[in-house]
Amino acid sequence: MNDVEVEVLAEPELDDPVLVEGLPGVGHVGTLVAEHLIEEGESELLRRIYSEHLPPQVTVSETGLAELVAVECHHVAIGDRDLLVVTGDQQAASGVGHYRIAEAVLDIAGEVGVGSVLALGGVPTGELVEEHAVLGAASSETLIETLEDVGVEFRENEPEGGIVGISGLLVGLGGQRGLTAACLMGETSGYLVDPKSAQALLGVLQTHLDFEVDLTELEERADEMEDVVARMQEIEDQNVPTEDDLRYIG
Amino acid sequence: MNDVEVEVLAEPELDDPVLVEGLPGVGHVGTLVAEHLIEEGESELLRRIYSEHLPPQVTVSETGLAELVAVECHHVAIGDRDLLVVTGDQQAASGVGHYRIAEAVLDIAGEVGVGSVLALGGVPTGELVEEHAVLGAASSETLIETLEDVGVEFRENEPEGGIVGISGLLVGLGGQRGLTAACLMGETSGYLVDPKSAQALLGVLQTHLDFEVDLTELEERADEMEDVVARMQEIEDQNVPTEDDLRYIG
Amino acid sequence: MNDVEVEVLAEPELDDPVLVEGLPGVGHVGTLVAEHLIEEGESELLRRIYSEHLPPQVTVSETGLAELVAVECHHVAIGDRDLLVVTGDQQAASGVGHYRIAEAVLDIAGEVGVGSVLALGGVPTGELVEEHAVLGAASSETLIETLEDVGVEFRENEPEGGIVGISGLLVGLGGQRGLTAACLMGETSGYLVDPKSAQALLGVLQTHLDFEVDLTELEERADEMEDVVARMQEIEDQNVPTEDDLRYIG
Amino acid sequence: MNDVEVEVLAEPELDDPVLVEGLPGVGHVGTLVAEHLIEEGESELLRRIYSEHLPPQVTVSETGLAELVAVECHHVAIGDRDLLVVTGDQQAASGVGHYRIAEAVLDIAGEVGVGSVLALGGVPTGELVEEHAVLGAASSETLIETLEDVGVEFRENEPEGGIVGISGLLVGLGGQRGLTAACLMGETSGYLVDPKSAQALLGVLQTHLDFEVDLTELEERADEMEDVVARMQEIEDQNVPTEDDLRYIG
Repeated sequence: MNDVEVEVLAEPELDDPVLVEGLPGVGHVGTLVAEHLIEEGESELLRRIYSEHLPPQVTVSETGLAELVAVECHHVAIGDRDLLVVTGDQQAASGVGHYRIAEAVLDIAGEVGVGSVLALGGVPTGELVEEHAVLGAASSETLIETLEDVGVEFRENEPEGGIVGISGLLVGLGGQRGLTAACLMGETSGYLVDPKSAQALLGVLQTHLDFEVDLTELEERADEMEDVVARMQEIEDQNVPTEDDLRYIG
Repeated sequence: MNDVEVEVLAEPELDDPVLVEGLPGVGHVGTLVAEHLIEEGESELLRRIYSEHLPPQVTVSETGLAELVAVECHHVAIGDRDLLVVTGDQQAASGVGHYRIAEAVLDIAGEVGVGSVLALGGVPTGELVEEHAVLGAASSETLIETLEDVGVEFRENEPEGGIVGISGLLVGLGGQRGLTAACLMGETSGYLVDPKSAQALLGVLQTHLDFEVDLTELEERADEMEDVVARMQEIEDQNVPTEDDLRYIG
Repeated sequence: MNDVEVEVLAEPELDDPVLVEGLPGVGHVGTLVAEHLIEEGESELLRRIYSEHLPPQVTVSETGLAELVAVECHHVAIGDRDLLVVTGDQQAASGVGHYRIAEAVLDIAGEVGVGSVLALGGVPTGELVEEHAVLGAASSETLIETLEDVGVEFRENEPEGGIVGISGLLVGLGGQRGLTAACLMGETSGYLVDPKSAQALLGVLQTHLDFEVDLTELEERADEMEDVVARMQEIEDQNVPTEDDLRYIG
Repeated sequence: MNDVEVEVLAEPELDDPVLVEGLPGVGHVGTLVAEHLIEEGESELLRRIYSEHLPPQVTVSETGLAELVAVECHHVAIGDRDLLVVTGDQQAASGVGHYRIAEAVLDIAGEVGVGSVLALGGVPTGELVEEHAVLGAASSETLIETLEDVGVEFRENEPEGGIVGISGLLVGLGGQRGLTAACLMGETSGYLVDPKSAQALLGVLQTHLDFEVDLTELEERADEMEDVVARMQEIEDQNVPTEDDLRYIG
């Protein structure tokens, strides 16, 4: 295996596709949206990216099948909209690896004619969130204005430490390649898998890209998590939990 | 020395050999089985893999001989069965290293005509185990069925975090190369070297590959460890030991 | 993207330029000086260095623009003096990365005709500092004498562990390339952003390089920090803060 | 700078030279011996090895000169004996780096005609040591016998974890290149710089290589450390110090 190896599974013609990335991160917000799009749209797996920069690991399916960790690129058609949805079980295991995987994703984006990139993720607030704002960062002023019109908030110096990992690099390196690129981040506590933040993010995405998906399943998961959160808050009322307590619930 | 360097020590003709990997890991279960096979079968060292991705280290033998850390591939003949047994003192020291060493092992497997891979290891339960189940993950549904027939358990989402290190990669990368590949993992506490788990694993291996080895030595080691475990449990009855207490016994 | 990629933004003729490096480090002393020079002088951005050895990160501007982490080389003209000021948001993320970025900076220095290098930084004292001495280390005895004449102190075996990161390497590798190179380090507590140490360092720089800049802004920042320090010392009088307490203020 | 870069400073003809390595490690035992040989013999610096695998660092001399971290190879003539003494301020900063630096040292050894390698170091006992045994590990049985005759002890399974770092690799990789190679390790507490252990090691070296050096300076340093140890033991009698207390003294 080379540094990065791309398995080509299908090569359909896409119509002005938008890259939507949702690899694992804070609150699994990006992953939840990406997986929901794949499930609700008309989907086809186009590429698998294998790399020694991903963790040295196989995942085990429900039936016991072992599969090498990979980043996957799916074609998802929803209404008239063509998406290239990028997801997977793991991000790269090192800083250099993040750069290499991001470049590989952008190469594939180039092959299928992607003109704009939306990297999805969560931004941790450190406390349980009622209203899930969607924060943004983008490669151009024009895109910032467009996104503000659909409800994305651009706050001074947020997120404070910048955006780390593949989401940041897809915007940074994508911008360098002349793509219109933005990172959209749903506010989330940072402690829990957060389907409600994913719902808020998907809402913005629908308006921005002008498509509609059935949100039922995501709403159900959000309801389940609300129950968990409610139980959490009961516990919190009794004795303030440490970060470690909460971490096991994610 | 290059990235990975293979020393060729012998090149016998092997008859449909099965790769059996047992490098150090949880409970040393895989290593115990691999070493037992080498001792009990008719064995010949075929290859040594040296690599800067292994720890920068020599081991010191009982007589004081210093030997560079290596992964070793042995031909082991037991009855009519030809095995390529892969073992050694150390796994790779980094994620990239795991990929590189796994590829080197699979290259050697290709040279000697290996068609199927069994990566052995332990799966930690976090507590002392009475019955040592053998869990599995495999590269195909057919192999899963075959292994279930010899007593391997395939449990939904276990091991939870997937399989990390060379065992996982031999199955994942091996599957990609068209090999029939599985990981077999003996349940073990995770705190102790576990010859009893190794015995259970070897039992499954014997049935699956249709050979027989003398288990006396492994049973003796298991009895010794049972004494240790018994002493451990006495202590446990007095005051619950921390993980750190137990770690020193392994 | 390659290992290191240099974006060329301008190529003016420089007159015997001096490289002044101020990347983030102890007390942000070097960065404060570098940024002050860029703001007060006549400045032009000449080069951006992107690299997979920098953190995989974009910074987000006040308006929401995402920018890939980079090391920047500015031409700064102050009076008759031409400087090549090197700064940025981040240092390299690994030891090898520090070497690669330092070499890239020195290559650019070579292209624009730099003959001497001043790497700026802070040296931590571990306690709040009243008088900010400027310590030095240099590539030649002659340069040591010259710098002593402008108030730089050369103390036996200080800093004790040598100088780590790009500042050290610009002097070490710069010296090997035949450049006159020194590291100038303002004494600072190590806990706080320290504009007062930066002021002391800039004072030495002005005398050594024979230029003058308006210090008003740096003085204002120093006054603000003095207030912070005063509040810190009040707290300290009440109960001795741990390093962790202080770290959040930097 | 490449991966590893060798600066050639002199190329004398050496007469059957023995490589003696003493880079920093446990108790600085190897370094103390190497530096003592350089000081007491007729010495010339032959090579400096610079590498991005060494820490990104300059050391600062007593007068303030900054020098890039390097591994140095000195020709040391003592009586009729030609040594290639390898020392420096730092070992490599990574596992891969240890391999690369060790290969570079062995390449130089090949250029000057080295036939045998003695890698010096300390082996930690975890407690203050009265008698400093010298333990060994070697690349051949013959060499083990020869070294036993001059008082080197070869103990079953010691040092337990093998020998890590450049000392181990010079023996392991040196043996692979057909060199007669051994590691000699003075017993030492592991907490303190230990000139007494260095003295014991140098004693063995003198007998084995049949040369004599003045030990006065090393004895004086040993006396100084004995005073430190005596003060340590007083403290120990009062309250048992933790490892952390002791660490600051090394």
